[in-house]
Amino acid sequence: MPLTTIGFDADDTLWHSENHFMLTTERFCELLGPWCDASHQERIESELIEIERRNLKLLGYGAKAFTLSMVETAIEVSDGQIPASAIKEILMWGHDLLKHPVQLLDGVADTLEVLADSFRLLLITKGDLLHQESKIAQSGIAQKFSGIEILSNKTPGSYLRVLDQHSVQSAEFLMVGNSVRSDVLPVLEIGARAVHVPYHLTWALEEDDSDDVAVAEFQTLSDIAELPKLISSLDL
Amino acid sequence: MPLTTIGFDADDTLWHSENHFMLTTERFCELLGPWCDASHQERIESELIEIERRNLKLLGYGAKAFTLSMVETAIEVSDGQIPASAIKEILMWGHDLLKHPVQLLDGVADTLEVLADSFRLLLITKGDLLHQESKIAQSGIAQKFSGIEILSNKTPGSYLRVLDQHSVQSAEFLMVGNSVRSDVLPVLEIGARAVHVPYHLTWALEEDDSDDVAVAEFQTLSDIAELPKLISSLDL
Repeated sequence: MPLTTIGFDADDTLWHSENHFMLTTERFCELLGPWCDASHQERIESELIEIERRNLKLLGYGAKAFTLSMVETAIEVSDGQIPASAIKEILMWGHDLLKHPVQLLDGVADTLEVLADSFRLLLITKGDLLHQESKIAQSGIAQKFSGIEILSNKTPGSYLRVLDQHSVQSAEFLMVGNSVRSDVLPVLEIGARAVHVPYHLTWALEEDDSDDVAVAEFQTLSDIAELPKLISSLDL
Repeated sequence: MPLTTIGFDADDTLWHSENHFMLTTERFCELLGPWCDASHQERIESELIEIERRNLKLLGYGAKAFTLSMVETAIEVSDGQIPASAIKEILMWGHDLLKHPVQLLDGVADTLEVLADSFRLLLITKGDLLHQESKIAQSGIAQKFSGIEILSNKTPGSYLRVLDQHSVQSAEFLMVGNSVRSDVLPVLEIGARAVHVPYHLTWALEEDDSDDVAVAEFQTLSDIAELPKLISSLDL
């Protein structure tokens, strides 16, 4: 069945995102320095990731969940010694993350322009509904997509629901994204194609599940600009 | 044009929600008592609402936004004196709000059962994507709806998008909900019908915009169980 529809992840596939979170995490580790003992300092980042992991099912993805997990980590790591002024600073970092202007990745606008001539494009992202809508509206590329789907999580079932809503069969769909766990493996599982375009940073909770990756076969591009060439070389 | 489709709001229309937020607000005011001077104590609740209002455009609706606004209010009202242990307590109230079991309002299950025989039912709610999905899954009534739409906000434009997605014209649509601002006025504005079923509590930021209400005409029911009778009496 010929390819008709291409899905794109948004954060770290179309625009920068993880770099803002990483920068905030660095600031967070510095902020906590004086409020925890030396043995704890190296563990701040891993404590934050553990608390994010614990909260994921309840708080989901996105900047609000991250901010709540930072506050919780700050209290835990400082053994309740962190002052309110430092917590206020963390809250404002959360606001900054939500307000940060959208910066498209290199090559995105041109690649979408080329592909939109021959394929139906869908934007399929997960995270905070309001924040994702605001970034899409700001991005200047919303009109390239015939459908925009914001999911709470990316699973084989949620991809199938999206394809069903747009009357697309798995065999005619290809997904493009930076996360093997979210954008590649569940898509391969439903019998569709996927292309991995890594971002230079990966959030620990998006890291590959190596057993699954070992058995999965998919193509990886270092630059989204190579996508039209790869697609035209596929046996469609 | 005959009525074919009925939309239902979820929080405080199908199940209890605002009572949990109100109870948490009461606890919040008690918690802050010792950390602010007497003249401030009466103003804690209105400070919280002001901070929620200020954050609404950035944080949106739902329990995570509410928790972040409570933490910010606690720091502001206590002039930075609130200890981390109290902030930890607020974070855990946020978790409790997200984990609270869904309690259907009286009459909801039977009313949906009756209406589903003659109409297509849609669930149209706003708020946090993951939390709303989790409540819908828990509610036991998800299968009554032929569509479930979670919006970041309820505006005439967002209702039109939902109706368009489901190929429903405004003239064949009726919306049922507890909020005049979110479930009635924008629906009347697109030429559809709306029925207001008030909950006994209304969040300050959902309160009616009285100028608009004065010119709008809609029916109000004290009990959702009266809905099938009202609908059968409409000139369809």
